[in-house]
Order: sequence, then structure tokens, then C-alpha cells
Amino acid sequence: MLALKHVHVTSFNENTVYVHKDCSTYQVEDVASLTKMEIHGGVKPVYAFLQVVDDAKIVKPNELGLNTEAFKLINIPEGANVSMTIASRPPSLNAIKKKIAGNILSAGEYRSIAHDIEQRRYSNMDIVSFLVSTGAFMTAPEVLHMTEALIGDKTINWDNENIIVDHHSLGGVPGNKTDIVITAIVAAYGLPIPKTASRSLTSTAGVADTFAVLANVNLDEKTLQKSIRENRGAIACYQSMDIAPVNRLVRSVERQIGITQKEHVVSSILAIKIATGVTHLVIDIPVGDKARIKNTNDALRIRKLVEYVGDMLSIDIDAVITDGSEPIGNGVGPVLEARDVMKILRNKEDAPEDLKEKSLFLAGRILEFDPKLKGGQGYAVAKEILQSGRALEALNKIIHTQGKAPQPELGHLTREVLAPYSGVVERIDNQRINSIGVWAGANKFAGAGLDLLKKVGDKVEQGDVLYRIHSGTSTDFAYANSAVEGYSGYEISRE
Amino acid sequence: MLALKHVHVTSFNENTVYVHKDCSTYQVEDVASLTKMEIHGGVKPVYAFLQVVDDAKIVKPNELGLNTEAFKLINIPEGANVSMTIASRPPSLNAIKKKIAGNILSAGEYRSIAHDIEQRRYSNMDIVSFLVSTGAFMTAPEVLHMTEALIGDKTINWDNENIIVDHHSLGGVPGNKTDIVITAIVAAYGLPIPKTASRSLTSTAGVADTFAVLANVNLDEKTLQKSIRENRGAIACYQSMDIAPVNRLVRSVERQIGITQKEHVVSSILAIKIATGVTHLVIDIPVGDKARIKNTNDALRIRKLVEYVGDMLSIDIDAVITDGSEPIGNGVGPVLEARDVMKILRNKEDAPEDLKEKSLFLAGRILEFDPKLKGGQGYAVAKEILQSGRALEALNKIIHTQGKAPQPELGHLTREVLAPYSGVVERIDNQRINSIGVWAGANKFAGAGLDLLKKVGDKVEQGDVLYRIHSGTSTDFAYANSAVEGYSGYEISRE
Repeated sequence: MLALKHVHVTSFNENTVYVHKDCSTYQVEDVASLTKMEIHGGVKPVYAFLQVVDDAKIVKPNELGLNTEAFKLINIPEGANVSMTIASRPPSLNAIKKKIAGNILSAGEYRSIAHDIEQRRYSNMDIVSFLVSTGAFMTAPEVLHMTEALIGDKTINWDNENIIVDHHSLGGVPGNKTDIVITAIVAAYGLPIPKTASRSLTSTAGVADTFAVLANVNLDEKTLQKSIRENRGAIACYQSMDIAPVNRLVRSVERQIGITQKEHVVSSILAIKIATGVTHLVIDIPVGDKARIKNTNDALRIRKLVEYVGDMLSIDIDAVITDGSEPIGNGVGPVLEARDVMKILRNKEDAPEDLKEKSLFLAGRILEFDPKLKGGQGYAVAKEILQSGRALEALNKIIHTQGKAPQPELGHLTREVLAPYSGVVERIDNQRINSIGVWAGANKFAGAGLDLLKKVGDKVEQGDVLYRIHSGTSTDFAYANSAVEGYSGYEISRE
Repeated sequence: MLALKHVHVTSFNENTVYVHKDCSTYQVEDVASLTKMEIHGGVKPVYAFLQVVDDAKIVKPNELGLNTEAFKLINIPEGANVSMTIASRPPSLNAIKKKIAGNILSAGEYRSIAHDIEQRRYSNMDIVSFLVSTGAFMTAPEVLHMTEALIGDKTINWDNENIIVDHHSLGGVPGNKTDIVITAIVAAYGLPIPKTASRSLTSTAGVADTFAVLANVNLDEKTLQKSIRENRGAIACYQSMDIAPVNRLVRSVERQIGITQKEHVVSSILAIKIATGVTHLVIDIPVGDKARIKNTNDALRIRKLVEYVGDMLSIDIDAVITDGSEPIGNGVGPVLEARDVMKILRNKEDAPEDLKEKSLFLAGRILEFDPKLKGGQGYAVAKEILQSGRALEALNKIIHTQGKAPQPELGHLTREVLAPYSGVVERIDNQRINSIGVWAGANKFAGAGLDLLKKVGDKVEQGDVLYRIHSGTSTDFAYANSAVEGYSGYEISRE
């Protein structure tokens, strides 16, 4: 038996057990490769990877250390007696072997996999096996089974509401923050919209990153329910909420390996929405050769898939194919995007028209979920709510309930990217704009990003500013600058 | 800039960078998921996963900690100035996306992947992506390209030798330690045989585990060359040798996820053999419904594949399909297997006949690589060498050169598993015997394992001992005992 020690290291959902190389109980010097251990002493065994320590300040030979994640799970005090054995293989890994061999997995198999992931019997590497093996192909019923497995046991309860709406975009289009405008309009109308959004690591900004410029987005369930009760709307980061825990673990690994399959995105989004108690959902499918969905055929396939899974799980889905050929709005990066959103809500003349129109269009589709509204009236109602200032008022109330954020400043290091010759902006490359935004630091610092002053179709004179880069640190600024020298992302046709 | 600190933790080929949560330079509190960092300060950047620390005894806010693996790679002293950025994606990961989508990868793509793995730009999770995506299917040319990519830059040089032989079994059959007997016979004959073997974690014993009972197997290249020069034979653990480094990294991850594809096994074995300078190789393909290769069709496919890759890479391969329907020899577990091997070499009457005959057969095939030997004479020559005691003499010389091991004792906790009724042993389940051996502790403690007193075809009376379990610790013993209660692995038909 060894004495438990909390090693204060956070490893992002990977559990670690630290054993001293001269451990008094376990011979670990001979261990030659990664070994998953089963730690005994708590109510349930905890699974963790063995790491060998040669520093008694971290763990002593008579101690067994657990990192912060594993220590929370074992849930017994430091100093308690603990022991370990080599973990047996979670049986559901056999289903993954079957999937690699090209088979279709059953609902039960997806459930077993999700169960083992929830019990932390899967390492991050095992989760990668799951993602990559199912990445090759999944039938529509498999996507359904995966969605069901990801929902988890707990869904948010909305006692007296008949209808809970939300909106989600499949993404890949920089600046596309319709969600905040939509939430404001729909909440002002009075349909309850607990918008769940995500933070981003690899793109310039997720909806949660942008709204975090204005308000606290790390809501617990109570605050979310309070804001819906009082304001009919809320925007919360799903990663901070206690729903669909398996989905959270799987997505965290998926981000790291950077391999995103559409079937996984669909099951993940629907699982979160269903766990949040959403009954009616608009899904925005932007299509563009540099968006996530490249062509209309793919978009139609995704739409059918989303509709099928939605039908089977009794969530009403309106999947809308939209133009994803260029960035939406002017700002790319949290602070700049929040500025665009507020311009629209304040009915400013220089508000970006494309972002405003897309928001009105999608908000209109959501409003039409209301049986009291006649078909075709959604857009006009949404427009009236926006122009009257009621949408702004609704968002301010939401911000007040969620807690106002200390608004970060715009990055003070700027560079203007100029038109090399006169002509017309022919094309703006979403992926390149996103990359330059990330190099400028937008995924780490809310004030960084790009301000797009010209959009597709605009006439430009040689030397006109196409866009302005904002960075917060000189390193990021240098990265973004050197990236721009290569290829700015803008294509201009000579007149 | 932060000051470098060596955090004395070994994580088995995963690099870790430790940053204090109140780091003076990098804001890490907001980091929400696994992030791969690029650490600058050494000659080449080092890639490592970020972990956040809340204990100044591990790292202080002005320090950047690297675990032992990463600290070795950065190769600059503690206290040196270091900085970090978020790592960009290794470009070869795009090839993995292509593979997931069902494409065939080129030689160049396999090379790029291997290069990025060698540079440690792949995390273990990325390596899993590679393994699982190629696990779905690989064409024969892909297996060739993967083998080439795994060989690496360095191959062992055997100046004056025209022919270097070796033997390898595809495995899955408990007790099957022909390799040691074969090495002794071939070395005694005079053909140089630098046998590379592996340690096992998940099965009762690899060849390296068993030979480690008799001699040191962690050889450097010099000792290997010395033993070949002086004794014509050596048995070395490939994991401890500085060859095929990418293969070592990939295999370490493969063991952890427990998903082994035959194509990967073929490329791995051939890469190691070629990197060791082997020119002539006998491959043993045991077939049995509880062996790794289940049926003759599969075995023939593997043989064709091995022959194709061997031809293209100019290594002469004799692939032999053998009977893998039951364990070979009596001992299962390092000490018991070593006992069997020594009985054979000492020409003891109670030496296991099946292990002896299989060893002679395979040794004979290797001897026939010698152009001076007439076809069909190999077996007889091998038998003469064994019976004359020259094989034993050769092995003793090899043990002397490699360094004699402090022979571990047989596990003192024993249990006899008895025949429940009289009859004939119909079948012995390889997988079950292996599992019970592992539960008994054979993968951790060399003295643990099973001693099989009855084999298929043997008549047994009710109460006869079928096999004896040996364990070193009461925990392992209890595991093995409870496993036996369920299913002993023996099937007996009533007379």
C-alpha cells in the first residue's frame, strides 16, 4: 500500500499516476512503455497512465501521486492508502477493432464505448482510435446511435416551456457571428433560446469567445435557467456546463488531432442541443470552396443526415444552406466581431450588411417555429424587433444576468494590408483569413484579429486598405506580417 | 523568456512541458484543452504537450519545465532561457486525413509521416491516428513504403559477413520460444545470427523476456557485434537498441491501444531486421483459431505479403506456415520457458518434444540459407549440432558475452489445475492460457506463469494435474485462481 498524494498538475482530461522509480511497493524501473493502471482505494477504481518520477519532491518512494484530474475522481484525502494494478482492456475496444475492419456498429456498441469513455477507461489515445475508426465511414443509423450515446444521462429541464429553440452553424466561415444577433432578436420576441456555443483553439473565434468579450459565458445550469426565465435568452459555453460529458471528452481529443469528420460534428451538435433540452433547432450549413462544407451536394447530404437524426430523436430541425464563400461581417476575432454585433443591434449605419441580413434571415426561420406566427412572416418580425431597439435591450438584459465582462482592448499593433493594384475584389479565402487571424493571435487574445474593410464585389484603387491586422504581442504581429507577405487571402481582378 | 527546468518525470515517449498557472510570461489559465507547444532555445525546436502546474516545487512561475524525454531532446542546461509558441500542425497529418477518406498513400507520404514522428512532431494521439487510419486497409506497396519509412537512416554494419540470418515468429502461441534454441544451433553451425527480440507487456513473455532470465538482453551495438564476432550469435532486445527509432515509437503506441494489424506487424518486423543488417530471414507463421493468424488463407496472404516486401527490399525470406493450434513446450512465462529451452539444449529426456522438433525444423531452414549445405540437409545437421552439445556450448558463450543474468526464482505460490473427469485433452486455448499467465503475473515477474503438464492428445484420469500456476504475489495469485474457476482453457473429451 502507498500513501496517496495530489500532484498539482492539470493534464487536460488525461489521468496520470506518478510513482517514484525506487517505489517501495511496485517495481517500475522495468516498465518500458505506456501502461494504463487501475488505482484502488476510492469508491470506484480510477484509471490513469503510469509516469515514473525521479524526484522525491514530486512523489516519495512510499507515495502514489495522482494528477489533479485523477485526484478529483478518486475523491479520497491525501495520505489515504491506495494500491494499483495494471488495467484490463475496456471490452468496448473490441467494437473499435470491428469498425476498423469495416463493420457497422450497433446502438449497444456505441453505448458501451460512451460508457467506458465516461468511466475514464479510455485513454485519449483510445478516444483517437474511436474517432479515426468511425471517421472512415458511418451509416446514418450509426450517427444516430453515436448521438444518443453522447447525450448522456442528464438533460436540462425547462419546466413550463413547450418549446426551446436554438441555432447552430456548422462553421468554417470567419466572422460569422449571427448567433449573438439571433439570440437577441429571438429572446426579445419571447421564444426561450439557451444558446450553447463553443470556444475555439484552432480558429480565430468561436461564438463563446466573441460573446465572452461582452459577458461571462461560463454559466452553470442555474444561471442559464435564470437568464432564460428572466430574459428568454442566454449564451453559454457548453464546455463549462455539466452536460454531455462524453461529448466534451471526445471533442477535446478531436480538436487536438485536428481531424474533424462531418458525421462527428453532427452527432456532437445534436447531442449538446438535446442535452440542453432544445426542441426546435435551426442549423446553418454554409457552403463554399474554402468553408467546411465544400459544395451543395455535400450540404444536401448533411441536411438529410441532420433531418434523419433529428426526426428519430424528436427534435424539430430546419437545416438551411447558406453562402459560405467569403467571411461574413467585417471583424474577424472576438473584439472586432463583438463590435460588428453591437453596431447591428444599435442600428448603426456602418453595421455590416451581410452579417445583419443573414442574422435576420436565420432569426426569422427560428421565429417561425412559433405556431402563432404565420409562415413567411419571420423575417419581417425579426427586422422590426431589431429596428425598434428591443433586440439590443434583450441582449443588455442577458449581459446583465450573465455578468458583464471587462471588455478587452483591441490589439494595438496594427498593419494595413493594401490593394497591390486597382480592380475588384474577386474572392476572399476563408481559410487564409482564418489562418492569418490565428497567427495574429486571435485564438489566444480577444483583441487580436483582422478588420476586413473590403468585401467581394468592392471596387478598390491601388493602395486602398483591404484589411487591418491587430495583434497584442510583437511575436504574433511578426507571424501575421510574414504570413501576409506570402498570400493575403484576397484576390483582385484588374479592371 | 523563462528559465528551463528538468522535471524528473518519465512519460514513455510523450513530451511534456510544465508551466505554472501564474506563469510570468504565458497566460495558461484560460487553456481549456490539450495543446501542443513548440519549445525554443535548443538547436532544434522541441514539441511537447502543455500541462499546467499549481506547485512551485515542480515549476516556479518564471520557469518552464520539461519532462525527462523532452529535456533530453532540447539538450541545453537547466536555467537556460527558453520560450514557447503553439505548435503548428505537422503537414504530413494531411496524408492521414486522406487515408481516413480511403485513399492509398505514396512512398513520399509514408516518408513524411515517419520524418515528422522522428522529429517528435506527432503526439502519441497523432501516432494512433496514423495506426488506425492505415489499419483499415493497406495495399502491398503501402506496406513496402511503410517498411522503408520505418527502417530509418541507420543500419548495423557487418563488415566481412556475406550473410546475416535471423528468425522471427508472428506469435500468438504461448511458450513458443524456439528462437533461443535456433540461435544456439545456428551460431554453433557458424552462420551469424544477431537475433532481435521484443519484450512483452500484454502477453506472458516475449523472447527477450525469456532470454533475460539467462542473460542481459539490453545490448548496445558494440556488444551485439562482439558476440556475433566471437560466438556467431546474440539475442538482443530491439527496444534497447538504437535502430529503427520511428518503429520503436510507433510500436510503443500500438501496444498501448492494443490494436495490432498484420500489415503493421509485417512492416515492423522487416524494418527491424533490415536495420539490423539481416540478409536471410525465416519467418514462422503459426496458424490456429486462437493464434494471431486464424486460418491458412490468412497465413498465405501474409506469406505473399512478406515475400513481396522482402523481394523489393532485397532480403531473402523463407516464410513457413506452422501449427499454432496449442501452446508449444510446457512452460508459459519467462523462467519456465527458459527451463524448457535449457532442457532441450542439455538433451534431457523430459525436454518438451514439440518445442524441440519445431526448433530443429526452423533451424534447419535457416542452415539451408548456407549455399554450401545441400537442400534437405538442414534438419539433420541441426539435430546433430543439438545432440552433440555444441548448441549448448554456443549458447553458454553467448550468455557469457552478453552477461549472465541473476536467475530469478520460480513463483512460490502454486496451484494445480486438475482434470474434472477422465478423458483425452482435446484442445488447449492459446488465448485463455496466455490470459491466465498474465493474471498470474508473468508479464511483470519472470518467475510467474503456467507449467503445462498435459498437451493435446494426452489421456488424463480425473484429478490428474493439467497444469500448475506459479505466482510471485498473492494479488496475482488470487487473480489467476479466480480466472481458472471460470474457464481453465483446457477442453477434455470424455472417453
